[in-house]
Amino acid sequence: MDEPSTAARIRAVLVGTQHPGNIGSAARALKTMGLGRLSLVAPERFPHPEALALAAGADDLLAAATVHATLAEAVADCTLVLGCTARSRRVPLPEQGPRDAAEAILAEVDAGGEVALVFGRERTGLENDELQLCHGAVHIPANPEYSSLNLAAAVQVLAWEVRMALLSRQPAAAPEPRDPPASHAQLEGLFAQLGDTLDAIDFHKGRAPESAMRKLRRLFLRSRLDAREVRLLRGVLADAQRMARLAGGDGGR
Amino acid sequence: MDEPSTAARIRAVLVGTQHPGNIGSAARALKTMGLGRLSLVAPERFPHPEALALAAGADDLLAAATVHATLAEAVADCTLVLGCTARSRRVPLPEQGPRDAAEAILAEVDAGGEVALVFGRERTGLENDELQLCHGAVHIPANPEYSSLNLAAAVQVLAWEVRMALLSRQPAAAPEPRDPPASHAQLEGLFAQLGDTLDAIDFHKGRAPESAMRKLRRLFLRSRLDAREVRLLRGVLADAQRMARLAGGDGGR
Repeated sequence: MDEPSTAARIRAVLVGTQHPGNIGSAARALKTMGLGRLSLVAPERFPHPEALALAAGADDLLAAATVHATLAEAVADCTLVLGCTARSRRVPLPEQGPRDAAEAILAEVDAGGEVALVFGRERTGLENDELQLCHGAVHIPANPEYSSLNLAAAVQVLAWEVRMALLSRQPAAAPEPRDPPASHAQLEGLFAQLGDTLDAIDFHKGRAPESAMRKLRRLFLRSRLDAREVRLLRGVLADAQRMARLAGGDGGR
Repeated sequence: MDEPSTAARIRAVLVGTQHPGNIGSAARALKTMGLGRLSLVAPERFPHPEALALAAGADDLLAAATVHATLAEAVADCTLVLGCTARSRRVPLPEQGPRDAAEAILAEVDAGGEVALVFGRERTGLENDELQLCHGAVHIPANPEYSSLNLAAAVQVLAWEVRMALLSRQPAAAPEPRDPPASHAQLEGLFAQLGDTLDAIDFHKGRAPESAMRKLRRLFLRSRLDAREVRLLRGVLADAQRMARLAGGDGGR
């Protein structure tokens, strides 16, 4: 299933939103994550210039948003309705976190379903009769000492998890073009020249060279050098060797 | 390592934030996810009543926020600096998504490090010289047709992933014993000496030095040097500089 057709079967439903700015911010959060459907249940003020201002380039979602009198009407055609809840104690519903919920949402769409993610009022959340319409609850495990996510922040977290679940099932994107990694032989050539250079600049001063070389190998290997970087480093070493020759300071060799 | 002590070694750094409301919203996003440290680099207006209003109950983070003139100053004691970037093409840094970045951040804290997550200006992001200070880039894989996450939304996504990584951890596997990672200031000391050495051994031979230095920084940053490795490399450079002095071949300087 491709990304747009999956996203087209997932809607966010905002219930009784008090601040129109939050509707705009939620639209923006949805669109950045590739979700395009928004339903509003009895918004206090909508349409409203603040919603438009905060939607930034996501005003198309506002223009296409459906407005409903009740949550029941907004989710009438949905096969999976998940209510986002701040606190879970009083909720008589199976509850999961956003990551598991995202998997459940995609599985539902795969099975031919329609999904609603429902967000309640800023202060008071969803009412009991609204929770009764939900198949499950999603709880964001926030800091227990300060769990007050802004409405748009909660939408952002859920939409992000849906996007990540969707992206993780698609064939991996082509990797960033990068220079080819250095071969074993190229790296050994670098280390041999590094060893010679340390001798030439009299780095060891009588100490056994193995310990320093082992540490230097380790840090360069960890860096996963590419072939061009090996050439650059060898150029630096060549100039240090040239200086050592000019100084006559090749450690007696 | 327990949750609060891990969180205490992770800071968000907001660079050149234009709208004070975004500073407040970012503080709220951090605190809901259990992160408590905020640094500001040259904010356009701060302190400001809008920042306080949007922080809601996270005003303690604003009160404790440190304000700096430059990013270098804000991250001087950090061992891992990750820059959040909207688009990656021009960024000469290893890049990862928020989920992998969260794992890397916790691993760094386990190893005794200090982490900065850096967020750029609302419109223009981070400048090139600021990206040069970062060990890696974090890119949120947003909708390619509309990738414009609000600053606080980007902070929310990163903070959420850090929280999820922390919550999902097994109780304290003993971390690999490793030397403490090098601080930003130690790495900059190394790079300064490397620049001097390249001059002394006449590496550039009339070419502009910036390109080679940028590549060398990148490969050493990628290697995540520890403090002892920095000392070892500086010892090698000191001997190369000594040879160059003996040779009288300091490139005309």
